[in-house]
This record gives sequence, structure tokens and C-alpha cells, in this order.
Amino acid sequence: MLNVHLVPHTHDDVGWLKTVDQYYYGGRNNIQHAGVQFILDSVVDQLQKNPARRFIYVETAFFIRWWSQQDAGTQKIVTELVNEGRLEFINGGWCMSDEATTHYSAVIDQMTLGLRFLNDTFGECGRPRVAWHIDPFGHAREHASMFAQMGYDGFFFGRLDYQDKRRRMNEKDMEMIWRASESLAPPSADLFTGVLPNGYNPPDGFCWDQSCSDAPIQDDPSLEDYNVDTIVTNFLKVANDQATIYRTNHIIMTMGSDFQYENANLWYKNLDKLIRYVNAKQSQGSKVNVLYSTPSCYLQELHRANLTWSVKTDDFFPYADDAHDFWTGYFTSRPALKRYERISNSLLQVCNQLEVLGGPSSKKGPHGDGDSETLRKAMAVAQHHDAVSGTEKQHVADDYAKRLATGCAHCQVLVSNALSKLSGSGAPRVYCENLNISVCPLTESSHKFSVTVYNPLSRSISWAVRLPVNGSRYSVTDPSGRLVDSQVIPVSQSTQDIRRDRGYARNELLFQAQAPPLGFRTYSVSLLPNRPLRASPQHGTPLYLQNKFLKVTFDPETGLLSSLTNMETKQTMQLKQNFYWYNASLGNRESSQPSGAYIFRPNSSTPVPVSLTAKTQTVQNSVVQEVWQQFGPWVSQVVRLYQDSRELELEWTVGPVPVKDGHGKEVITRLETSINSSGLFYTDSNGREVLERRRDFRPTWDLKQTEPIAGNYYPINSRMYIKDKEQQLTVVTDRSQGGSSILDGSLEIMLHRRLLVDDYRGVGEALSEPGEYGEGLVVRGRLLLALTPPAAAADTHRPLAESLVLQPLISLQDGDLHPNTLLEFSGLQAALPPAVHLLTLSQWDRDSMLLRLEHQFQAKESQSHSQPVTVNLQKLFSTLDVVGVSEMSLAANQWKDKMTRMEWKGNTGEKPLRQESADPSPWEVTLKPMEIRTFLLRVLQR
Amino acid sequence: MLNVHLVPHTHDDVGWLKTVDQYYYGGRNNIQHAGVQFILDSVVDQLQKNPARRFIYVETAFFIRWWSQQDAGTQKIVTELVNEGRLEFINGGWCMSDEATTHYSAVIDQMTLGLRFLNDTFGECGRPRVAWHIDPFGHAREHASMFAQMGYDGFFFGRLDYQDKRRRMNEKDMEMIWRASESLAPPSADLFTGVLPNGYNPPDGFCWDQSCSDAPIQDDPSLEDYNVDTIVTNFLKVANDQATIYRTNHIIMTMGSDFQYENANLWYKNLDKLIRYVNAKQSQGSKVNVLYSTPSCYLQELHRANLTWSVKTDDFFPYADDAHDFWTGYFTSRPALKRYERISNSLLQVCNQLEVLGGPSSKKGPHGDGDSETLRKAMAVAQHHDAVSGTEKQHVADDYAKRLATGCAHCQVLVSNALSKLSGSGAPRVYCENLNISVCPLTESSHKFSVTVYNPLSRSISWAVRLPVNGSRYSVTDPSGRLVDSQVIPVSQSTQDIRRDRGYARNELLFQAQAPPLGFRTYSVSLLPNRPLRASPQHGTPLYLQNKFLKVTFDPETGLLSSLTNMETKQTMQLKQNFYWYNASLGNRESSQPSGAYIFRPNSSTPVPVSLTAKTQTVQNSVVQEVWQQFGPWVSQVVRLYQDSRELELEWTVGPVPVKDGHGKEVITRLETSINSSGLFYTDSNGREVLERRRDFRPTWDLKQTEPIAGNYYPINSRMYIKDKEQQLTVVTDRSQGGSSILDGSLEIMLHRRLLVDDYRGVGEALSEPGEYGEGLVVRGRLLLALTPPAAAADTHRPLAESLVLQPLISLQDGDLHPNTLLEFSGLQAALPPAVHLLTLSQWDRDSMLLRLEHQFQAKESQSHSQPVTVNLQKLFSTLDVVGVSEMSLAANQWKDKMTRMEWKGNTGEKPLRQESADPSPWEVTLKPMEIRTFLLRVLQR
Repeated sequence: MLNVHLVPHTHDDVGWLKTVDQYYYGGRNNIQHAGVQFILDSVVDQLQKNPARRFIYVETAFFIRWWSQQDAGTQKIVTELVNEGRLEFINGGWCMSDEATTHYSAVIDQMTLGLRFLNDTFGECGRPRVAWHIDPFGHAREHASMFAQMGYDGFFFGRLDYQDKRRRMNEKDMEMIWRASESLAPPSADLFTGVLPNGYNPPDGFCWDQSCSDAPIQDDPSLEDYNVDTIVTNFLKVANDQATIYRTNHIIMTMGSDFQYENANLWYKNLDKLIRYVNAKQSQGSKVNVLYSTPSCYLQELHRANLTWSVKTDDFFPYADDAHDFWTGYFTSRPALKRYERISNSLLQVCNQLEVLGGPSSKKGPHGDGDSETLRKAMAVAQHHDAVSGTEKQHVADDYAKRLATGCAHCQVLVSNALSKLSGSGAPRVYCENLNISVCPLTESSHKFSVTVYNPLSRSISWAVRLPVNGSRYSVTDPSGRLVDSQVIPVSQSTQDIRRDRGYARNELLFQAQAPPLGFRTYSVSLLPNRPLRASPQHGTPLYLQNKFLKVTFDPETGLLSSLTNMETKQTMQLKQNFYWYNASLGNRESSQPSGAYIFRPNSSTPVPVSLTAKTQTVQNSVVQEVWQQFGPWVSQVVRLYQDSRELELEWTVGPVPVKDGHGKEVITRLETSINSSGLFYTDSNGREVLERRRDFRPTWDLKQTEPIAGNYYPINSRMYIKDKEQQLTVVTDRSQGGSSILDGSLEIMLHRRLLVDDYRGVGEALSEPGEYGEGLVVRGRLLLALTPPAAAADTHRPLAESLVLQPLISLQDGDLHPNTLLEFSGLQAALPPAVHLLTLSQWDRDSMLLRLEHQFQAKESQSHSQPVTVNLQKLFSTLDVVGVSEMSLAANQWKDKMTRMEWKGNTGEKPLRQESADPSPWEVTLKPMEIRTFLLRVLQR
Repeated sequence: MLNVHLVPHTHDDVGWLKTVDQYYYGGRNNIQHAGVQFILDSVVDQLQKNPARRFIYVETAFFIRWWSQQDAGTQKIVTELVNEGRLEFINGGWCMSDEATTHYSAVIDQMTLGLRFLNDTFGECGRPRVAWHIDPFGHAREHASMFAQMGYDGFFFGRLDYQDKRRRMNEKDMEMIWRASESLAPPSADLFTGVLPNGYNPPDGFCWDQSCSDAPIQDDPSLEDYNVDTIVTNFLKVANDQATIYRTNHIIMTMGSDFQYENANLWYKNLDKLIRYVNAKQSQGSKVNVLYSTPSCYLQELHRANLTWSVKTDDFFPYADDAHDFWTGYFTSRPALKRYERISNSLLQVCNQLEVLGGPSSKKGPHGDGDSETLRKAMAVAQHHDAVSGTEKQHVADDYAKRLATGCAHCQVLVSNALSKLSGSGAPRVYCENLNISVCPLTESSHKFSVTVYNPLSRSISWAVRLPVNGSRYSVTDPSGRLVDSQVIPVSQSTQDIRRDRGYARNELLFQAQAPPLGFRTYSVSLLPNRPLRASPQHGTPLYLQNKFLKVTFDPETGLLSSLTNMETKQTMQLKQNFYWYNASLGNRESSQPSGAYIFRPNSSTPVPVSLTAKTQTVQNSVVQEVWQQFGPWVSQVVRLYQDSRELELEWTVGPVPVKDGHGKEVITRLETSINSSGLFYTDSNGREVLERRRDFRPTWDLKQTEPIAGNYYPINSRMYIKDKEQQLTVVTDRSQGGSSILDGSLEIMLHRRLLVDDYRGVGEALSEPGEYGEGLVVRGRLLLALTPPAAAADTHRPLAESLVLQPLISLQDGDLHPNTLLEFSGLQAALPPAVHLLTLSQWDRDSMLLRLEHQFQAKESQSHSQPVTVNLQKLFSTLDVVGVSEMSLAANQWKDKMTRMEWKGNTGEKPLRQESADPSPWEVTLKPMEIRTFLLRVLQR
């Protein structure tokens, strides 16, 4: 008997063409008919009508909105439906996250937020067993790894490369084991993974939603158009056809799609009939049995089949749904939103930490009511696969940004309260969010102010502070009153051009600040009598910039970079760097596919240089050395070397991208080096483990390359590198971007995109961000370059990326501080070992907090750090006593020791062993490479 | 306090863009999203969630489909909802009938069918109190009269002339008393009538159906787009504005529209909130109270207001929704369907009668299982305002025709069984439905056959039988064996051209048959040895045709009619008749409105003659005299005068209308006479009472005429006339058509229309019927002309129209009949008086039958017949004993003596008195002019 599992489901985007709240309420239905409140109303009604009916629900962001509006009676009914398995939560995060452009820390947070609600509300019966990413456009290995560590039994998705799918269909390889980590010992990062047969849609002809037009089952013989026989015959054919590409006598059909089930009766009434009439054929010898089911029921049957499955170790990027339709544009789409999301994450972590460290008065203190929840939810929403991905409509992108801004404002109040508590100073605090364009009203006008640098990392940092000012000379003193070397340089013309009337600072004050682990340090700044600027920029290109770690040379003819030298290892690499744009296809004879929010399709493989030369200016002083390169009216760059840096900073500014010439532009920077990279390059997955990429190649099928550029683009979340035996050039990015290595020795990163037409994937708008002035968005960002021997590269790029992801929070206070103010504080007793990253520290409930410690090195990646490392939890905090420790699953929705997952047999022959804990004691926890451990700590404030 | 009655409703077309069954099931949603099964599912669910919620349902054709598929539990719930007034039936006929193109007998039947189901199923609580014609495109006075006689307390509609509405709004005259008969004593045909404020839609901004995009009420302040205040403010404004055009402190809002409430939750959830938030404003001084309501609750409040209302005596035709948008095209659209509907009605009445007369074996007899129900339902469906109106899509028109054909086939079996029972002959019977194009396989090939003529009228008739044959000489004998005068003439070239290969008859056999009241007569026909035809047609135009009653002359130059003489009254009238076409507008600078299925808009007021002359042939013999006029390849006519006729028959044939010249054509025939009509003409209302029309004039407002042709068109259902003091020319039609008198002394009737574009009223197709061969539909029909003194006209046109509406049914049997066969039968003991029309005789249940007797003359219209007339019910039937009589309301859903209606005060000052029965005895019933009396008779077969 062939068992057909019908899975009624809805796919509810947490924002896309409409905002999340418009989707929830069903507002602006002129854009898209969709109202989640009605979906849940309707499904709950319909589930009650027939106990056989099933439904799965995925997006907790929506469910919680609905739940909070229900009366106790409805909540009770829903709880019963959940307890009986008729309503089942699947995936269960706040949203269904994007996989290409999200950072693992934010993904873990959003999953934790959603799953916690389910856990708190429904207990064990509400815990999703299956991960379900039916819509994201490509699948990251790190996501699979996280899902495994969160305890999911399996994972289903809908989209994969069309060539890959074809092969898998031919070879009955639609379901597999995904071994999602090279560091973690199997099966801890193994995830059973299934490709759904039909995306996430029903088979053709069987869509009975209000948004569909397939014929309903018309079973009254006294009326016209009776069609039971036709429908049953068609269904049997579809089912039998589908069975030929799967391995067991169970198959799954997704009966639903985007925002479906708003009127669930249409679906269920017809599905009831389908099941009745198809199964009735069994008495005439039919071997097909149809049933209402869920992905977890289906998975259980697959598990019961006790087969051996293939093992996959690479990922599902890039995603193409046809020969010229590579979904590699969104890796970069909306670069400003992508950066804002990343900054917001950093602030959220600061906020979380200070909520713990500052105690109860953080949320209700001298600065008012603050909270971390608003930003936590905004960040969770922003992880959606049409949010940080950049594939939403403009007004929706604006809504995401607004939510983040509101969340940041709430967090700022909390942070101010906490810092007030910790420092003893209740004076107002100001946060300047536009420092990147040299805007900060306080520092622009104040004669005396203090600068507090809060460092969310578990080790000390040194951070270059740059503040817009109008004076030309300041004294900067550290907590002990010692003068700190500071410099004032003029604000560049490029920055003045883009900030316009948002600020009036003529100069920038620069100094290098230090901050202790999980703590702050406060610097005092006083205006000194004016005198002419010591270091006004010199026109022309210097031969080189150099500090004790790096030397970078320039080509005096072109003003471009020409080489990079690591002074410690004495390695020199030729390095040419320039900006180019790919001419975005508008579709051509080969394919009508244009470039758009999702799709990257250049109409030529040769990008156009923005300029062959750069006009340059140079600033050099005791804090920083900079070459200001101007490539034309809409591209500029600062090549920057701080006095103590081991990395070279490239601060690029792109925009407004001109498109009046009729050419959509996809702007890249390309670095051409003397590294012998042999077609290989490396990109990270969601900011953690790194995957090897090979040009024009896929590890699991024989690629027919049809787009030599777009088909070689991969997502970068934190880093990309090329290497040969001696040298590795690593580029650390400040946001998610797309990148590739099109030529040996080269490495390119797409920075910005502005396009003229929609790419036919539903968003219905050309990606052409207007920016604040309507002329096109200007984007500024940073690339950090490190040249090292390959074996030492991780020792540099791991902490470097970490410090860019969790950057210090700078707050400002005007005037003198009270003498009793505490100017330096660390929440830790001591810095954690270099391999350990404090991923999460946040309040859980009144007496407990959530702690995640992470080993941030891969196995074998670092000679010094790729080793197990032990942390004593009781000796961690300076102000908190840890009185209880319970280890949790990664998403903190079950006790680690209760987490049992289905075991699956891979075809590799090896037999993975469950590893015993290596912890020396309950308080001393050992982290192995790439391991994240999650603890619920009961704590007492000291 | 202003009370706002929110009326949740759905308007469910019984076929339009989709067929009735497609609408019911929600099939072909690609054409239009609509599924009535889900509407009723959803509404019943939602009504249960809040006892304050109300819903009205209108179309029993849909409700019965749904009801029959529900289980007992649901039926019980629905019954409770009905009993509690939460679900209320309104109107309650099988459909919401068209008012311009329907015949009163079919409307009464369809109302009876729908209301009977409600009565049988729900009893008194299911009886609609309000008539509700929110969508029909113009309103017939006869409909109002019927509704009054059916016991409705009031009537609401949505569409009326935009100038009329403007005046009524300005003068607060939106609600009125409609005095709907000039013959019936008030208030028996008085109907309280209200114009709805907004068609039948919700006010702008308050449509919360899934098909709408208005913002839902977003009342969670923690989410974006909170809009309660805006919505409440807007609603208060809308309500207060609306109150200024109505007279009481109660106003009605129709909260629904076409096929809405498929997901009733969307509506009710928002309406619940609207009511809550608007009424909450009362505590802040708001004087607006919103409530769920129904039309009958609203009507009750109007009644309670005890005001004096204006009295209207004309009708609401024609309907224009803008200056160039006259909905007068559909009076003629789809002329073949309009005729087929009329023929089917005739067959249904025959079928009903024979079901009674033939007894139980009619439904199960030697010819198989037959029934009247199928045709009754098909006819009821065909009365819908997008059915016989001709305003549906082609595939839907085909479905209506198919239903009628199926119903006719079922009736033919019943009729065969009944005739078999009554005649004693079980030999097979054949019905030839294509006699109008001389097609009948049996008579074409048989040497010997019999012809049975069943007459459904309550008086004897003489009927010209025309049968296609291939012999040239036949003997025809009547039941007593007497030879009947018969003639054989050749089939005209015109008929051969249009019948193509559907038949091969060379000739037609003609004889005049007689048939007794409610009975049949059988004639025997035998082929005689062939000899050359006596009367082959002569080329050329005769000077005149003449019998003892009429003389008609021709213009020998043109071949056209030139005069008509009534030989009895010695009246002669000049009469020129020709065919023309109006050039259908495609829209112009003045207005983009084109002619279409609904709209008639000629682009010039001068129609184009099809030809100035006709080629003619003449046939004259002892049975008939005919002039065959050919006006070109697509228009021909037979001018026909039977030996004993008082009317002149014009059998027109139009089509395929050529449109390759880019001109849509609206084909008329225009009769120009010497009558001094002074701008006046007369058209009937639904085949009963006649209304006076005046060119470029409306009785109740100061018309600004903007379309001199289309704005003067009126529906004709049975007759139209012009007159002066001496002469009246009456034209009796065989179907509903549009007509006018554009010039004094002229009268024109639109026969056929073929158009090139859609007219933007939703049907989305150009009205261009393809016909069986795809070249364009050919239509043939008849106009019967009578010239009389005005005072005697009704004596002619009433019986003439009656005999065309209920025409004899001809059945054929091959070969010899058994000698014992009864060849003549009458169901009546005697013919009824000339004023009495037997409107309905049909089986009601096993032992009872429904009888409707009608006085078919208007008051004062006939010197001889406009008098009360009494009929003795016990002496009516020849084979049935009447053992019980109960009088019913017109639609037979309540006892007449229990029928109480609200009384309304008109502003005419008079005080209508309830009239006492004038019946001499319970068995002897008196009919006053235009009165219809409905009886349930208990009968025994003798």
C-alpha cells in the first residue's frame, strides 16, 4: 500500500509584500490578499469539525499575535488540539529565517524566542520535532547544524538547484542525511533532510484554497459537472508518479501555500472528500491510502523504514531554478538594511548583557522604562527570509528598519539604566547612531563630554573611536586620568557630501579606546584652545602606509592599492583593488530573466570599472594613516591603517548608483592578488564554519554551468578567503554580502545593487532604493583585510569577525561626570580563553539567565586554539553568583539530557557514537571546536 | 439616536459568469471566485459564534442544494438559527428574477417553488416578509403587484435611474408606496418600496469581504497600523450623511455584495468590532447606534414611524446609471434563449396539467419515468436576472438552455405517459422541436402518422399545424374521420438555408387543427400518391392578401407592406414595415460606453435599412396566404394570413448578423402607420398590465433625455401598441423584446443584436452569439398584428397573447393507431369564460393540486370582459372531483385568510378599504379584473 501523507499547511511570510502586521490583520489586501488572523481563526474552527484533520503551523511571530487576542475558551480548545496532535507546530521559530544572509547568533535568538513561547504555552506537545524551511532560496549548512543541535529530528525544504533536484529525482536521492559540521562529532550535527516533491505547493490540480482555481470535488450526481471519478483518477496518477522518486511506501504532499487556509473550509471540505473517494477505491483493488498527516508523522514512517541514507556534507548554495535564474543577487540586496540588522544584533546583545548585569533597575530606572524584548522581536522578525534578505517591497523594508529603530530605542533606555546602576552616574546618555557619516549633535557642540565604551565580548578590546567635532584640539583622558593620544582630522569631502544637512562637524576626533570584557570604560574629552589642524590631508598618493604589523603600497599612477605585506611573517602579496559594476541583464533572447531583488544576472561576464584611477588624499598621524580614494561621483574609499591594527580597513562608500543611463548596476569591489588560488575560494556559513568553493563546480552533481558569474556567487556572512600554500588573504565583512572568485587569485564582493526592473519572483518592484533624498541610497561599509599564512589565518579572522559582529556600544554624556562615578567595569572575573566566545547572556526569568558559550574555532583550523577548552561557570561573573546550572538544547526549549533525536543510518559505513560529556565537573564545562553550549543559570546578584 | 441597521447579506447570482452549479460548488474559480456551498457553511458557522449576528439569504435555488448535503445535526442548527431570526430568508424565490424579460406566469412559478421549500422546511419562521431585488436592472410594476399579492410587507431594491435617484435623495423620497395595479383595489397591489442607499454594497471603506481590500479594524495598539479611531470617525460620517436622505431615525446599510461571505469570519469579526467601537462612542455623546439587523427588522422600524409616504404608480424602466448608459439592450439580448424559455414555460404548463389529468401513471408509465420537477427547476433558474435577460456569458446561456432541454425531455416522457393513459394508446410518441425550421424526421419519412394537438388553454383553440414532409399530397382526417382541408407547399429557400443538414423536407403540410379546452385532439395523416404541388410559390409581389377578417396590401415597387385593413370594422391603416439596424456604439468622446449585453447605445439615432426593397414570392391556397420577403442574405420575412385569423403574422428571420464590417448591429423592425400616436405608446409589464409610455418623458421626474433612442426603449413581454382615437395597432410578440415609438405613428421592436465589445458591466464578453455553425446565430420569430378600435383591442390581444404564451403541444405517432384509441379529450367540463385564464394547474402533493385562475382583462379595458366573473370549482374538471378548496396567497406559501400585511399610509389622502370576498359560495369564486386567485384543491380522480 502506498501511503500518501497530506499535510495541510500555510506559509506565512513574516513580511514581504506587506508588513508583518499588515499580514497579520489582513490590511492592504489590495497589495496581496492575506490575513493571518483569519487563517488561524479558520483552521481552529475547521480542525474541530473532524478529528482526522491535521494542520501544522510554523511562524510563531504570527501565532503569538493571534493567541494574545483569543479568549480563554479558544485558548483551551487550541491547547486540546495541540495536545491531540491535530494542530502541530513545526519549525516554531519566530519566523522562517533566511539562510544566506543571516548570522547564526540572530538565528539562534529568533528560534529561541519562538520556541520559548511554544514551550511556555503548550509544553512538550508544543515542541516542534521537524525543521521546515520550505521557502528560503538556498540552504546553509550552518542552519542544518543549528537545527540538529536544537534537537529537531528532521528537516524539509522546497527549493534547491534544478539540476540538483533532477539528479536526486532520477536517483531517488530526495531524502538524505546532512552532516552539517566538519568539527562536531556525528551525529550531533547530522540532520535528516528531505526535499519536498513540489516546492511547498499541492500537486497540480489539487489546490483548493480560496486563492486557487482548481475544480472542487463536485460529488452531487444531481448537479452538473460531477467530477469525482476524474479527480480520483488524476490523484492516483499523481501519487503513483511521485512514489517513483521516493524510496519508501510513504510519500508527502504539501496541501497549502502562501497565506492559504484563510478559509480553511474550502481545503478541508475537499480534502475530506478526496480521502473518502480515493480510499474507497481500495475495495476495488487500489493500493493507495491517503491520510491527513504532518511532517513529523511522515518522518516517523521514514524512520520506521530503517533504510540507509546518503550523507551530504556540502550545502545548497547557490540556488537556481533555471539555467539563467541564479538567486544570488539577494546575498547583497539592500546592503544598508543588512548592516542595520547586524548593528541591531550587536546592540541587542549589549542590551541583553546589561539587563543581566544591571539587574532589575535596567528595565525601570532613572532613564525610564526600557526593555530588550522589543528589539529581540524586531531582530527576530528581521531574520525572515524576505527581511534581511532584501527581497521585500520598499515599504516593508522601511517597516523592518522602523521596528529595529524602535527596538534600539527601547534598548538604549535599558542600557542607560544599567550603565547608570553600574557606574553610579544617572546623567543623561546620548547614543550617536550616525557616527559613520560623522554626525553626532552632542560631540559637534560640546566642550566637555565623556565617552563610555561598552564591550560585549568576553575579552578586552581596543577600539578606534571617531567622533565628529568642531574643535581642532581635545584632551582625552582614561579612567585613571591619563592622557590618551588623540588626533583631529578634517571630515572628508565624501562624507560631507553624503551626510548633507544631517550634521555640521568639520572635524573628527580620533583616539584608541580600550574596554574590559563584558564591561565598559569611560573616557573624558575636553576641548582645548583652537589651533590649526596638525594633520590636514595631503593631495596625492603616498608610496605606502605602514605600522608595525602591516605595510600597504599604492600605485602612484593609478592611486590604487598595489601590494600588502605582513611585517611579522614577512609575507608580501601583490594586491590590486578596484570597483566595478556588472551591467544587470534586463532579459535577453536566451532567457527573459532580468537581475532583480533575488536574481543576479549580469549581461556580460566582464564588469565595467567605475574608474581606472582614483584621486587620492592622505592623512597620517599617530593614531591612523588613511588614503582617501575618490573613484568618481558615486564611489569612494578610505584605505585605513590604525596604529595597532593587524588588519587593513577598506571603508567603501557607494551611491547613489546612477541608473539614468538605462543600466542597472551591481557594484563590486574586486581584489586581484598574486595568490595561486586554483579555482578555490572559501566562504563562511552564517558566520561560523567555512566551506570550500570551487569555481564552476558542485560537489554533489556534475554541474552544467550556464551563468559564469552569477552561478559562482556564494553568500558571505562574515568572511571569505583565498589561499595557496603560503598565503591566505582573508576579507572580513561588516554585513552579509555576495562574493566569488571569478579569476584565480582574485576575490570579489558585491557591495550594492540598483536595478531597473522586477525579477518575476513576486516582489513586483525593481530593487532601486531611493535613500533619504530620493536620489538613490548611498551605502558605506568596511572590509577588513588580513594577510597571513593559511595555518594562522583563523587566529586572526575569528576574533576579528567576532569583534565586528559584537561591536562596542558608545554612549556619551555631556559635561563633567560626578567624581564618584565608576569609570571602568567588567562583568567577568577574567577574560575568557581566546577560543571561547560568549554568545548569549540574557535574562531568562526573574532568577535565571541564559548563557551560551561557544568554541569559535573549527577543528584543525588553528594550531593554538582548535582544542577543547574548559570554562568554570562559577568563576565567570564578577557580580553574579551562579547557584544552579542546567544545560539546555541550543534553542533552550528542552533540557539537554532529555533531548533525544531519531537516529538515522548513513551510507558511509561508520557508526557514529554518542559521545560522553568531557566536563570535569558540573561547573566546569568543556567546549570542543565549534561547539555551542547553552545553559540556564540560576544566579544571585552579589 | 440614529439607528444604523447593518444587514449582512450575499448576492448569489443563479448563473452569470459561471453556471448555477459552478457557482454552487465554486467550480471554475478562474472565471470568478465564488462558491455558494462555502458561503452557507461559513455563515452558519459564524452565526453560532455571536447571538447578535444576523444574516439574510435570498436564493432558494442555492440554499436547497446546500441543505440537501447537510447532515441532520447541521440542519437542526440551521433550523434553530431560522427560528431565532438569526438567519432570515428574504425574497425566497428560486432566484431573484429579472423584471424586464420575464413573464408573470414563470415568475409566480419560480417564487412558488422557492417559497414552498422554505415553508415545507422551516414553516412560518422561514417565510420571507420582504421582497429583495437588489440587482435587477429596472423594476417592473407587475413584479411589485405580484409581491404584494404574495404577502410581502415591503420591497427593497438597489438600481434605479440616476436622475430618479438624485431627485429622491434630494427630496427624501427614497422610500414610498408603490401602487402596482390600476385594476386591483388598493391596498391589494400596494407595496412599500425602498431604494437602498448604496446599491447593495457596503459604504465605501467598509467592505470586509475576502473579495475586498478595505482596511480591517486593527485594534491591537501593540501592532502597527492601529486604526480604530479613523474607522469610527469615518463610519459616523457615513451614517450621518446617509441619514440626511432618509426620513426616519433608522437607516439601513447592506453589508455584503456578490458572492460575499464565503469566509464570513472576515465580515463578522470586523462588524463585531465596528459595532463595539462605534457604540462605545455613545458614552462620549455620540448619537449613533449600530446594530446587526435584517430588512424586515428595518422595515418594522419604518412602519413603527407611522409616517405618510408618497405613492408611485408608474414603474422603474428604463434604468440608466449614467447619461449614456441605458440598460435597454438586454430587453432583446439573446432572442433565441428568450424564446426557448417561453416555449419551455408553455411545455411546463402542459406537463403540469397532464401530471394532474393523467394521474400517477404520468410519472411512471409505459414511456418510462417522467417528471415536471426538472423543467420546473430549470424554468425557475431561467428566470434569474442574468438568465432570460441574456446578460450571462455564452457558456452559461448554453447551460440554461441545456437545463431547459433536459427538463423538456423529462416532461415529454410525462406527457407521453399521460396521453397514453388518457388516449389508451401506448405507442411511441415523438415531439418535433424544430418545426419552425421545418425539421421533423418522423413526418419527413413517414407515410402514415397521427398528430395529437394538446391545448393547455381553458378554451378551445384552432391552431395551424405545419409539418415538414417529402410527399406532395396527404389526407388529413379528424377524430371523427372527416377529411380536413390540408395543403402542401414547398419549404422556402430561406428556411432551407438556415436548417442546413438538420433536415431534408422539401415540403410542408399545412392544416388547421382544433383542440378542446385542457385537452387534445388527434388527427390522422396519410401520404397520397404524389402529384405536382398545387401551389408552388409565384415570384413577385401580390397587390394584397385577404381573408374575411383582414386585408393587407403591398407596395409592388418595394415589396413592402403598405396597408392593413380590418374588414369587420372597415378600418384601414397605412402600414409600412421594414428592417433596420442601429449601429452599436463602441464608445465615443461623449462617453466610453459601448452597446453590450446590457446596454443599448446606438451611435446614431437613424437606423440603417437592411434593404429598401424586398424580393418577394407568394403562396396562396385554401389554408394560408403568404408573401415571402427576402431583404438580403440575413433578413427575410413571411407575411402570413391564415384563413380564419384575425391577426396578421409576420414571421421574421434574422441572422447571422454580419459584423465583419466592424459595426455591431442592433436589428429592429419598424412599423410606420397613419396612427396619430402623439408621442404615446403602450407596453405590457411582465405580460400582464399595460403601462402608458411617453417619448422623452418620465412620470415622476423632469427627464433630461440624453439618449434619444436607447432612453425611449421599454421592455415588451407580450404586447405593445400605439393608438389614436379610432385605431389601435397592437403587436403581440412571441418572446420578450425591447421596443419603442421613436416617431409618431411608428412602433419598433428590437429583434436581434450582435455586438463587438463588452459593455463593462461585468459579463466580460461581447454579445455575439455564435450559433450552431459558429457564423452567428440565426433567429426566427413571429409578430402578430391586430388592427382594432382601441376599445375592442383587448378582446383581441388578450386571448391572442394567451394563446402564444400557452401554445398547443404537438406530438406524433407513427403508423396506424389502435382502433380503441381515444382521439379527443377535454379535462374541463366546459370552456371557461373568455375573461378567465387558467394560469396554473399542477400537482401539489399526492391528493391535492394547485389551481390558479386569473381574470386576464384589466379594469375598463374591455367593454365585454372587464367585469367580475364567477367560476364554480366543483364544475370545473371532467375527470376530477374537487372535495376541498383552500385559498392561498399568490405564491401558495400561506393561507389567504392568514395573510396579513403591514398597512402603510399613502399621501393620496384616500383610505383603502379591505374588500370583502364577493364569492357567492365557497365553491364559486369570483374574479375581478386582473385578479389571480390561488387555490389548493383536494381532488379525487373520477
